[in-house]
Amino acid sequence: MNLVLEADAKKPVYLRIKQAIVQQIKTGEMPSGMRLPATRDLARQLGVNRGTITMAYDELVADGLLESHVGRGTFVAEPYPHGHHDNGRSAGPVKMSWDGLFADSAESHVISSLLDLYQVSTLRDVISFSGSFPDNATFPLQEFRNSLHYAVRTLGAEVFAYGPATGLEKFRQYLATDMLESGIRLTADEILMTNGSQQALDLIARTFISPGDTVIVENPTYPGAVNAFSLAGARLVGVPVDTNGMRTETLEQVIALKRPKLMYVVPSFHNPTGACLSRERREHLLAIAQEYGIPIVEDDYGSDLRFEGAHLPPLKARDTGEHVIYVSNFSKSLMPGLRIGWCAAARPVIARLTALKQNCDITTPPILQAALWDFCRRRKYHGHLEKIRPIYRERRDAVIRLLEREFPRGTTWTKPEGGLFLWVTLPETIDTTELLLNVRQKGVVFSRGHLFYVDGGVRNTLRLSYGNVTIKQIETGLTILGRAARELFSRNADRTADKFLTHTVPLV
Amino acid sequence: MNLVLEADAKKPVYLRIKQAIVQQIKTGEMPSGMRLPATRDLARQLGVNRGTITMAYDELVADGLLESHVGRGTFVAEPYPHGHHDNGRSAGPVKMSWDGLFADSAESHVISSLLDLYQVSTLRDVISFSGSFPDNATFPLQEFRNSLHYAVRTLGAEVFAYGPATGLEKFRQYLATDMLESGIRLTADEILMTNGSQQALDLIARTFISPGDTVIVENPTYPGAVNAFSLAGARLVGVPVDTNGMRTETLEQVIALKRPKLMYVVPSFHNPTGACLSRERREHLLAIAQEYGIPIVEDDYGSDLRFEGAHLPPLKARDTGEHVIYVSNFSKSLMPGLRIGWCAAARPVIARLTALKQNCDITTPPILQAALWDFCRRRKYHGHLEKIRPIYRERRDAVIRLLEREFPRGTTWTKPEGGLFLWVTLPETIDTTELLLNVRQKGVVFSRGHLFYVDGGVRNTLRLSYGNVTIKQIETGLTILGRAARELFSRNADRTADKFLTHTVPLV
Repeated sequence: MNLVLEADAKKPVYLRIKQAIVQQIKTGEMPSGMRLPATRDLARQLGVNRGTITMAYDELVADGLLESHVGRGTFVAEPYPHGHHDNGRSAGPVKMSWDGLFADSAESHVISSLLDLYQVSTLRDVISFSGSFPDNATFPLQEFRNSLHYAVRTLGAEVFAYGPATGLEKFRQYLATDMLESGIRLTADEILMTNGSQQALDLIARTFISPGDTVIVENPTYPGAVNAFSLAGARLVGVPVDTNGMRTETLEQVIALKRPKLMYVVPSFHNPTGACLSRERREHLLAIAQEYGIPIVEDDYGSDLRFEGAHLPPLKARDTGEHVIYVSNFSKSLMPGLRIGWCAAARPVIARLTALKQNCDITTPPILQAALWDFCRRRKYHGHLEKIRPIYRERRDAVIRLLEREFPRGTTWTKPEGGLFLWVTLPETIDTTELLLNVRQKGVVFSRGHLFYVDGGVRNTLRLSYGNVTIKQIETGLTILGRAARELFSRNADRTADKFLTHTVPLV
Repeated sequence: MNLVLEADAKKPVYLRIKQAIVQQIKTGEMPSGMRLPATRDLARQLGVNRGTITMAYDELVADGLLESHVGRGTFVAEPYPHGHHDNGRSAGPVKMSWDGLFADSAESHVISSLLDLYQVSTLRDVISFSGSFPDNATFPLQEFRNSLHYAVRTLGAEVFAYGPATGLEKFRQYLATDMLESGIRLTADEILMTNGSQQALDLIARTFISPGDTVIVENPTYPGAVNAFSLAGARLVGVPVDTNGMRTETLEQVIALKRPKLMYVVPSFHNPTGACLSRERREHLLAIAQEYGIPIVEDDYGSDLRFEGAHLPPLKARDTGEHVIYVSNFSKSLMPGLRIGWCAAARPVIARLTALKQNCDITTPPILQAALWDFCRRRKYHGHLEKIRPIYRERRDAVIRLLEREFPRGTTWTKPEGGLFLWVTLPETIDTTELLLNVRQKGVVFSRGHLFYVDGGVRNTLRLSYGNVTIKQIETGLTILGRAARELFSRNADRTADKFLTHTVPLV
């Protein structure tokens, strides 16, 4: 393999290697099925370190241009990858070929980003500031086991039968009452239980979006929402955010141009920045929704995780015109593995979401709904919140302490009043992919910021999740990360500032 | 309201009433939002019994032409129903109108049929031969609680964290080993855990089907599959079934004409007929799949429920060319509320299904997977099967005894060797919608056969599920049903035999 790298010193080496490989795949010099040199060999050949090659290969695998098989190496992928590399298995006379059989939507790259985030986030033996996971050590195992026990003993077979698609009646009643405390007034039949927020977003996307419809989102935003809307064929239009959340002053112009079907927002502890939409902007956003008749999907995964500052009412609490489709869950504030969330909206919306939910998976497991209902009504959930809030505040403070102490000058960050992560902007000469490459070898990972943008995004931002790391890990991990950032900063100091845009499909 | 009924004595009265209402809605005589007379009043006015009106209204609600609000009455629906009947709630100045906002796919009627089946099936205080539910009384509550307990105690926080999208590694390993007993050879990484079979079907449909693609199904078939494929935009083409399952001899002609993307089959205890695809036809079907390169989706929900006769290997066991996407679950053979199923297929298929699964709901709840894994590896699942098989055989025998004794001459039925239901064909002059209307008042319900057809189907078939009824209920319920059928039979004896085709969208 004879790679010719572009002579552009401003571009990181791994990107130039990647580009050269893409070129050869396009021209057919590297045909489908061709095995690439081992990273070690190519690194020697090009005189770069091996990690640089790994990073280039990794991105190409994520883009679907290469396929990696553990123990066998890395290959140029088929235009539609199929099973014919699996020569190890003896096959019948006519082996199925999956070429071209998948729907276009299933072939798009968008849907791989959550998986990538998850896989990076759950690497063993690393200090992970990646996935926004709550701390496993806080899980109230004993109390929840009691609730499981209670549900089986007192409700019996009912919780193992098919339940209603909308969810357990008494749990929805509990939620309706509980939401009153946030100022949200609705009844149990305006609620649909879902398998976490992610299912609610998928159902909403499939219910509202026809291919080509536009959805307005914050930019950056939660990739799981981007994927759900994109899979349904939506075009995503991003509105910039600042420390007070979405900059609603630009919204009317965007609406006039793009005629969106929906607006998706995370007003409290916005993912990924941690920002809260200000009270004024909440009112402004609702007024715009009313004015133009555009529904708002409010992702309120995190209100319960506020550890300081004044409570801000959810949009749904001020939703006099019923424009808000409210989504929440217990994944960040209690335990993600329960896979329990809910959606609250006007009856015509709930009716359609419910019919679709029934066709997706019939119902959310009644046993888990029943146990969680018991857990909540015994006020164990509220007790749990009391317990975890100071823990996360302490971690946020530790992260900020380390950011101040260890990171290059010019680094800025948000200071969220709740939630599990904050957002860091490094000096523009630092590419976070290069940074990740450097620190991953040293056992530290984080989420690169450009993964959260719908338009490629800038290369110098990152999300630091402090949900599932101890104070000690924060100190160790961010010392390593800060040092690596400083090194890159001084090495790149001679580069003119340039913002690398990702070259592929928008977010993802 | 002044309804003029068609003077066609061959047509059941409720259908004529329905037709007259449709007419008035179309002409605008009955505008959107208009409240219909109470069933009691209209019955008096037309001189028919009240149940006849109820049946007409019910069908119109199912068709989306009427909307029913408990406690307030029945109204003519908006073309796109929205919130403005909810005048009880005080609203803000500009109330959201949902008119025209939903995606076309969400507006189609197809997705309501499962919901209907579920709602009829779970009516209280009736003897239900409807939904194919296992018997709640058989659920091994104590043993499963032990497994939940074990999972929490020994696996701890891990089972409440986000798990891998593919599912719990050790459960997939267990399933791979267990499937060997059925002759299926594969490894854990060719398995994806899903929320029951329904989610597997939804994922498969979304992964393979682009709008307009054709899927071949048995006719009649499982409505949940019809809905999943239809939602993804598939056209369904039905191949007739007999007591040996799908009539594969017609298949090649259909393939030549329709160029299908997939074939969906339920080879064992076919839903709704209970038939098993014969050994010869299994081989034939596989040969055709190989010949034409068309994947088969094999829904094997019920092999474990065989209570007599010789075991037939799943298609997947003979799938030398890897054409079969195998789907199974624990819903019928253990407890549906677990919502645990799985899909086994070639790696390129599993890879795409997994990426989509992650975007649908991240993962199937790890705690339930872990508990079920423990339950299975302690051989409690196999013990459970031993216990339930004779129960269902005894019930099937009771149903057949009653069919022989109580039903009009000319009635025929299948005699399944396993599963939870059988299929009855009444004399052609009997309309099962009329029959259901008559017996529902007497506390008996069943599933009308035409709901299972992709092309409207005939009006004189029904599915009798014996999964969740006692022998005593079978005797009482089928005595009532048989008597009602005999009455309709003698009353309609003078009618010329005519098969009513459903007038709406094909079931979808």
